[in-house]
Amino acid sequence: MHTPFSLVVGTFALLACFTLSGRAVPSAPDRRPVVRLAELEIDPAQMDQYLAILREEAETSIRVEPGVLTLYAVQLKADPTRVRLFEMYADSSSYDAHIASAHFRKYKTGTQAMVKSLVLLETEPVLLGTKHSDVLGNYVTVR
Amino acid sequence: MHTPFSLVVGTFALLACFTLSGRAVPSAPDRRPVVRLAELEIDPAQMDQYLAILREEAETSIRVEPGVLTLYAVQLKADPTRVRLFEMYADSSSYDAHIASAHFRKYKTGTQAMVKSLVLLETEPVLLGTKHSDVLGNYVTVR
Repeated sequence: MHTPFSLVVGTFALLACFTLSGRAVPSAPDRRPVVRLAELEIDPAQMDQYLAILREEAETSIRVEPGVLTLYAVQLKADPTRVRLFEMYADSSSYDAHIASAHFRKYKTGTQAMVKSLVLLETEPVLLGTKHSDVLGNYVTVR
Repeated sequence: MHTPFSLVVGTFALLACFTLSGRAVPSAPDRRPVVRLAELEIDPAQMDQYLAILREEAETSIRVEPGVLTLYAVQLKADPTRVRLFEMYADSSSYDAHIASAHFRKYKTGTQAMVKSLVLLETEPVLLGTKHSDVLGNYVTVR
């Protein structure tokens, strides 16, 4: 069952195998994707404005930062003021560069008064399964 | 700033525009991606076994189901028995087909005694930004 996947090997997958088998990879010690989750509660009165700033920041990040692989944002149907972010970076230096970027700082400052609560969750990826699709395209702003 | 993204238009994006502008799309009324989040707490003694079953189910789903676009699984660093899933389906019928599939049912039955708690969160996607990367490849099982 796993045979087809053994053929799909990117640079990271190779590095991960070496790393996990205990062999040193001196030239790229941290080439593991960084996945961060964020749970936000937004002031309902500023929801539209918040989403506009978030969209601009996410689009800029995906476009200009090679190490920003994925930025997903969803609202909970049960309470649309609750926003969940799923963020994937190529490695820890890509993550550091993102946090230091002008567009991220602009987002952070611009939305400070809109965010009622924020929980950041550091994670250890278990599996990251995705595929191209005509439905999804490379980038979709849903609304 | 948004100009480059206007060039990246998949089938879904077009349909979404029509739908959101209030124009009917009779041939494909529900061609919007379905994003579901799951928050699980796993019995620590059965963690490895749970992850093995989850990996097999996710790999099979991505491989054999055209409408299963993304299955991400991460463990919280603060408590690795807490697993978060991010699931994206091409549309609601893809989601229904996944839930009815033999491999999903096998996962559900096989892990029932391992899952101490499960919260399913239905969501409304705001933005789904991703791009290809040599780092990520098409499919990566991290560990």
